[in-house]
Amino acid sequence: MADATLSHVGIAVKSLDEAITHYTAITGSKPIMVTEVADQKVRVAMFSSGGEHTGGRIELLEATSPDSPIAKYLEKRGSGLHHICIYVDDIEARLSALKAAGYRLIDESPRVGAEGNRIAFVHPSAGDGVLIELEEKKQ
Amino acid sequence: MADATLSHVGIAVKSLDEAITHYTAITGSKPIMVTEVADQKVRVAMFSSGGEHTGGRIELLEATSPDSPIAKYLEKRGSGLHHICIYVDDIEARLSALKAAGYRLIDESPRVGAEGNRIAFVHPSAGDGVLIELEEKKQ
Repeated sequence: MADATLSHVGIAVKSLDEAITHYTAITGSKPIMVTEVADQKVRVAMFSSGGEHTGGRIELLEATSPDSPIAKYLEKRGSGLHHICIYVDDIEARLSALKAAGYRLIDESPRVGAEGNRIAFVHPSAGDGVLIELEEKKQ
Repeated sequence: MADATLSHVGIAVKSLDEAITHYTAITGSKPIMVTEVADQKVRVAMFSSGGEHTGGRIELLEATSPDSPIAKYLEKRGSGLHHICIYVDDIEARLSALKAAGYRLIDESPRVGAEGNRIAFVHPSAGDGVLIELEEKKQ
């Protein structure tokens, strides 16, 4: 899949179990995956009709610790849409281009995300307060 | 495309032109469409790698009037992620099921959206404060 397509949208929730019930009713489908990502201190549920590595997924995020980034977000802004993740073909080239254009990057170089792809976050101050994750699809 | 896949994510922006510049830098692609939707009092830009009727698109929304729903949203919450739109196979069946489950619906029956598909909004009070649009794909 090429650029300008959403990998997923991330939603910060207070209770993952309640949110799973909600999005199961909304979408008519059960999550394809529920897992804990220890180093991010989150529990995650993923909804997708197309499977694990398809675009357009819905990711629910629950904090597992008070110092989780999601716990801090919930405290500050409450539950709701947290970030969008956009597929890019070449994450290093995109990060270099954004840096050259003066963008503030949370990750100056890519790191490996929960699903094994290379990802990087762009600071929300860069545009309209939206936290953006870039994800390079595995070839 | 089946259920539990995002049609698009809607982002409320103060300046569509600035936001187009921003998302062109982020995605490396230009919008596939910029248009005005008179009855919603918005100007819209759509980013997608796959074309008009592909999932996972990014929709930027600018108010064209102070009484636009987007103007009210910006005043109350500022710019940022506004709604997610999820594909459903049968929108009437899904609305009936949600109504029976006690969900508050903004649209009790489907209406025709900007791209000609049947859509309906579910009230954000129903789950984690996220405004959800359902969209039935054209067969």
